[in-house]
Amino acid sequence: MPLDDLQTWFALTATVAFAVTAVLAVADRGVDIFGTTVLGVITAIGGGTVRDLILDVPVFWAVELSYVWFALGASLLAFAARAALSQKAVYGLMLHLDGFGAALFGIQAAGKVWDLGFGLPIAPIILGVVTAIGGGLIRDVLAGRQTLLMSRELYAIPVMFGCIAFVVILDVLPEYRVVGAIACIAFVTGLRSAAIRWRLTVPERLTTRPRRQ
Amino acid sequence: MPLDDLQTWFALTATVAFAVTAVLAVADRGVDIFGTTVLGVITAIGGGTVRDLILDVPVFWAVELSYVWFALGASLLAFAARAALSQKAVYGLMLHLDGFGAALFGIQAAGKVWDLGFGLPIAPIILGVVTAIGGGLIRDVLAGRQTLLMSRELYAIPVMFGCIAFVVILDVLPEYRVVGAIACIAFVTGLRSAAIRWRLTVPERLTTRPRRQ
Amino acid sequence: MPLDDLQTWFALTATVAFAVTAVLAVADRGVDIFGTTVLGVITAIGGGTVRDLILDVPVFWAVELSYVWFALGASLLAFAARAALSQKAVYGLMLHLDGFGAALFGIQAAGKVWDLGFGLPIAPIILGVVTAIGGGLIRDVLAGRQTLLMSRELYAIPVMFGCIAFVVILDVLPEYRVVGAIACIAFVTGLRSAAIRWRLTVPERLTTRPRRQ
Repeated sequence: MPLDDLQTWFALTATVAFAVTAVLAVADRGVDIFGTTVLGVITAIGGGTVRDLILDVPVFWAVELSYVWFALGASLLAFAARAALSQKAVYGLMLHLDGFGAALFGIQAAGKVWDLGFGLPIAPIILGVVTAIGGGLIRDVLAGRQTLLMSRELYAIPVMFGCIAFVVILDVLPEYRVVGAIACIAFVTGLRSAAIRWRLTVPERLTTRPRRQ
Repeated sequence: MPLDDLQTWFALTATVAFAVTAVLAVADRGVDIFGTTVLGVITAIGGGTVRDLILDVPVFWAVELSYVWFALGASLLAFAARAALSQKAVYGLMLHLDGFGAALFGIQAAGKVWDLGFGLPIAPIILGVVTAIGGGLIRDVLAGRQTLLMSRELYAIPVMFGCIAFVVILDVLPEYRVVGAIACIAFVTGLRSAAIRWRLTVPERLTTRPRRQ
Repeated sequence: MPLDDLQTWFALTATVAFAVTAVLAVADRGVDIFGTTVLGVITAIGGGTVRDLILDVPVFWAVELSYVWFALGASLLAFAARAALSQKAVYGLMLHLDGFGAALFGIQAAGKVWDLGFGLPIAPIILGVVTAIGGGLIRDVLAGRQTLLMSRELYAIPVMFGCIAFVVILDVLPEYRVVGAIACIAFVTGLRSAAIRWRLTVPERLTTRPRRQ
């Protein structure tokens, strides 16, 4: 129970981080409070919604409404405090928290898919990544922004490696599930934070050459 | 039964209005009859489809095919008669009918979600708004148009307020469900019509400042 | 069994063609190996995923993982060999294979929906088209490309006619199902190949006039 509680609190923190960074990401476009809130909530719960639809299980936020309330509240607060939150130091912190959120959502999702025995061993990895980045993709499409798939940013790739590692742990060392999950989340968060800090990107050798840009 | 019949006829009218305004909205882009028809049908039934997927209930248009036939027929007719329908007076009427459609779909959806006891009390409001604007969002994304989330137009906000009011009625005064639904639909339609007539938008205070545009 | 095996092998060939053309379609934009792979896989399995969600049946690629592995492998290979595959002759062949894939996926989907008795007779046609073009639409939206709905290319229309013909056969001459399916797939593939070869498009009479472009 205490561990479950802790997990839920971490997940709510991640939800808030997702919603806040989403609002800040679209704030430079002249969007009203309704639009920013919808985009904040979609970013926070969209990826998990797509995952649950594919799994054909009840959508997580309808089972546990706190996710919606926290996403709503965080989006509204972020709209109100967008000037303060856009300050470099605060925004930087939010970016790192957002990376932690992607790590947590991805690994949690991989575990959920694994427990359902759904499309093993590849679906836990695919749906882990979908959960982590799906909401952001929908946000960017609805906001008319370039999606992160078209950039060389290191965001989804750490999540993918983390999910692969976690699936290997679940298969080979199931008795180390909890510590393995924590290690994978720490690994993904660390990689993402390093990518933010040192502006790491996918090497050019692994990128197609744009015709003109 | 007569009330159900009436509801269905209203819903089919709204379906037609959604399909027709969708076709007219993309007609200035050099789209062929296939593209306009697909976009018309998606606009008319897309929002309800997303709602039913999230609710995990059978998709409404597969249960009652009239919605598809009316959307198809209306889209084809709108393509054929697009010159006539684009005339200012006719298009204006269609816009108001479209606003009525959004009101009807939103309130009906809120009632459906409420009856299923799904994620009360917040999901009926969220899915009411999704049903009203979801099809239009998918249309705009597929057509490469700016979605209404990025504009300050008063379209989804009246639906949201109407759904909130209807949920309060369902909770506090369930015996006034029918009259409450009618009142909420009238309220949303009126607010939307006023927004069209006097070009009301979300006040600037509740909108983020675009960096440059 | 041999027929089923044959079907599966054809479907895997189509999966590979979808993934490869998707990777080549986005390769001129400066996308990294992760982005191209995700877009390749989504193109190959996205349409069938949407179909299965609407049908409320288990997602096909979670039941038969080969589709994911082939899509993944083909996307990675296409990234590695993009220079060779972009040569005119090879790319032309891939385009025709892609047309065959759309035909096969569309007709197979129509048959699947028909067998489920889902929304007859219109849903098999709608979901046949969704299966054939849905993945490509999602790819284009995520990649910020114009979707094929906004072009006058003959891609989805042959699929639609093929699905209509197949539904008529299933209804009137169910004993000719196999030969009918083959004939419909051949018809759609032929029409698509003719459209590629002679650059056939929807006639201007059936296209709205762009305001300015």
